[in-house]
Amino acid sequence: MEFCVLFGGASFEHEISIVSAIALKGVLKDRIKYFIFLDENHHFYLIEESNMHSKYFAQIKEKKLPPLILTHNGLLKNSFLGAKIIELPLVINLVHGGDGEDGKLASLLEFYRIAFIGPRIEASVLSYNKYLTKLYAKDLGVKTLDHVLLNEKNRANALDLMNFNFPFIIKPNNAGSSLGVNVVKEEKELVYALDGAFEYSKEVLIEPFIQGVKEYNLAGCKIKKDFCFSYVEEPNKQEFLDFKQKYLDFSRNKAPKANLSNALEEQLKENFKKLYNDLFDGAIIRCDFFVIKNEVYLNEINPIPGSLANYLFDDFKTTLENLAQSLPKTPKIQIKNSYLLQIQKNK
Amino acid sequence: MEFCVLFGGASFEHEISIVSAIALKGVLKDRIKYFIFLDENHHFYLIEESNMHSKYFAQIKEKKLPPLILTHNGLLKNSFLGAKIIELPLVINLVHGGDGEDGKLASLLEFYRIAFIGPRIEASVLSYNKYLTKLYAKDLGVKTLDHVLLNEKNRANALDLMNFNFPFIIKPNNAGSSLGVNVVKEEKELVYALDGAFEYSKEVLIEPFIQGVKEYNLAGCKIKKDFCFSYVEEPNKQEFLDFKQKYLDFSRNKAPKANLSNALEEQLKENFKKLYNDLFDGAIIRCDFFVIKNEVYLNEINPIPGSLANYLFDDFKTTLENLAQSLPKTPKIQIKNSYLLQIQKNK
Repeated sequence: MEFCVLFGGASFEHEISIVSAIALKGVLKDRIKYFIFLDENHHFYLIEESNMHSKYFAQIKEKKLPPLILTHNGLLKNSFLGAKIIELPLVINLVHGGDGEDGKLASLLEFYRIAFIGPRIEASVLSYNKYLTKLYAKDLGVKTLDHVLLNEKNRANALDLMNFNFPFIIKPNNAGSSLGVNVVKEEKELVYALDGAFEYSKEVLIEPFIQGVKEYNLAGCKIKKDFCFSYVEEPNKQEFLDFKQKYLDFSRNKAPKANLSNALEEQLKENFKKLYNDLFDGAIIRCDFFVIKNEVYLNEINPIPGSLANYLFDDFKTTLENLAQSLPKTPKIQIKNSYLLQIQKNK
Repeated sequence: MEFCVLFGGASFEHEISIVSAIALKGVLKDRIKYFIFLDENHHFYLIEESNMHSKYFAQIKEKKLPPLILTHNGLLKNSFLGAKIIELPLVINLVHGGDGEDGKLASLLEFYRIAFIGPRIEASVLSYNKYLTKLYAKDLGVKTLDHVLLNEKNRANALDLMNFNFPFIIKPNNAGSSLGVNVVKEEKELVYALDGAFEYSKEVLIEPFIQGVKEYNLAGCKIKKDFCFSYVEEPNKQEFLDFKQKYLDFSRNKAPKANLSNALEEQLKENFKKLYNDLFDGAIIRCDFFVIKNEVYLNEINPIPGSLANYLFDDFKTTLENLAQSLPKTPKIQIKNSYLLQIQKNK
């Protein structure tokens, strides 16, 4: 089975996505037929396998590649010889953050009926926006931390809106990879931390910060009706993983397995299943949980985790191939024009 | 100011959208530079203004039009003379239901940086999915009716899941224009009504049906920081407006103004503002409310109402032109490749 890897994007995590794609090259090797790079101006390019290394991308702006257009079945190449379609095998959406996780690429791929692994539109919107993730999780009976949602209008009242105390953690409402995330221990740090978060997002989320909280990450997907889980990872962290740490983290090979009871692991899986539901069908996601007083809380859903969290799976290739056989289908709608014909008849 | 009207789509409301576009032609006349028809196979076509009538579309499958591709700045036309871009003025997204209201076209237009009037991706997802609309409204303090959400797995237990009694109303969770909506008065009608709703959507919503409930519709948009409202309409209904009634309803000229107190009108507007928030920036939406014991309940949000509910506005053209000056902007992201350069440096 062949894949193509779609990466890059007009995203604050553009570079993360490049590293993610390079890491996946190491795992899937010659199973990858095409590497499709999306630049920040939304042009698509095919990248030679031999150019899939950081040096090439560090200087990509100087390269002269022919831009391609995404359309039915694949990429359209216009040249003086005329237009040609490059047909695509199954696409792995590996664009982190904007474009990839906000629903845009899912929309384009669905629109052009190009099969892909990754979250669909609703799943993207519900996981990309951390406030919506909370609403969704809460309704499913999955606990999340208290929060306050700020925008430019109410940010001056941040402290009045909170019913929890210092320290707290401030995050952009729409961004991943810990960009713009800061822990605030006292009031004088607040404005700076808010400024930092508002740089990445029009809305900002504040949550209580729990020193030394237990964190567990679990990746997985649904194949036919069964769940396929990774092992549980206990992220190696200082206070929290910042952008640079996470970034370097992607290229690792194996993550440390968490030491936790079977009962707790089962609880994590039950929460994962509730969240994955049917919404994330077609995607490999990673749910990051907190455990506080033996209760599981959702921290966040990563609908396109770094290099698809391949290092957490015992047999990642087989998981991916099985998932490829279990993608959600969009039913075709038949247009009969029966009402239009009726109008004509009544005229 | 010139517009183009985008209509059709792979949607159960495909024909509604055609009628909607024809109605808007009558209102905006020569302000419309292009009529862009999207067929159910996701090809775009330009339709001559003289062909914008129901007879033409009733037989459109027999027409041989050159398909166009949506890309940066406009529509790409490939011919033996080479590729040519047809630049588009401001697009009015008038595709009801699938494609138009589910976030796909919003994604394509945003991706290619084509300015448009209509809901953005998040707004589309939250209003297209009636269950998500309820979660969102509830969190904002806007009341909605009790509900049960069914899928194929739990539909057999529908009656056990409900904490309300007959009669109730059954709706597809993702569909507009009353398609697949039925009132169920007794148990024996249930299976038929569920089958009808599941034809349109993988999930089905059940709500209590309140005979003779007061209904009020209010359309509007936010221009800069102020709201511009239509007058309040009291829909002329039998039990509820079914697909055919609503469909014929679109071509009307003026809707009857509702007879309601200033205080109630103010309440409707306050609820509308909460829902519109910043989420629907760039769109003219219609909120349909119930009033029960003097309390306002949201029934549903129409993010692309039929012919943009132009008949509810005193001066629709000016509203549209002002809105065109107040569209949300997506900030451009600068890619610096600083982390990639750092990796290179550390090598």
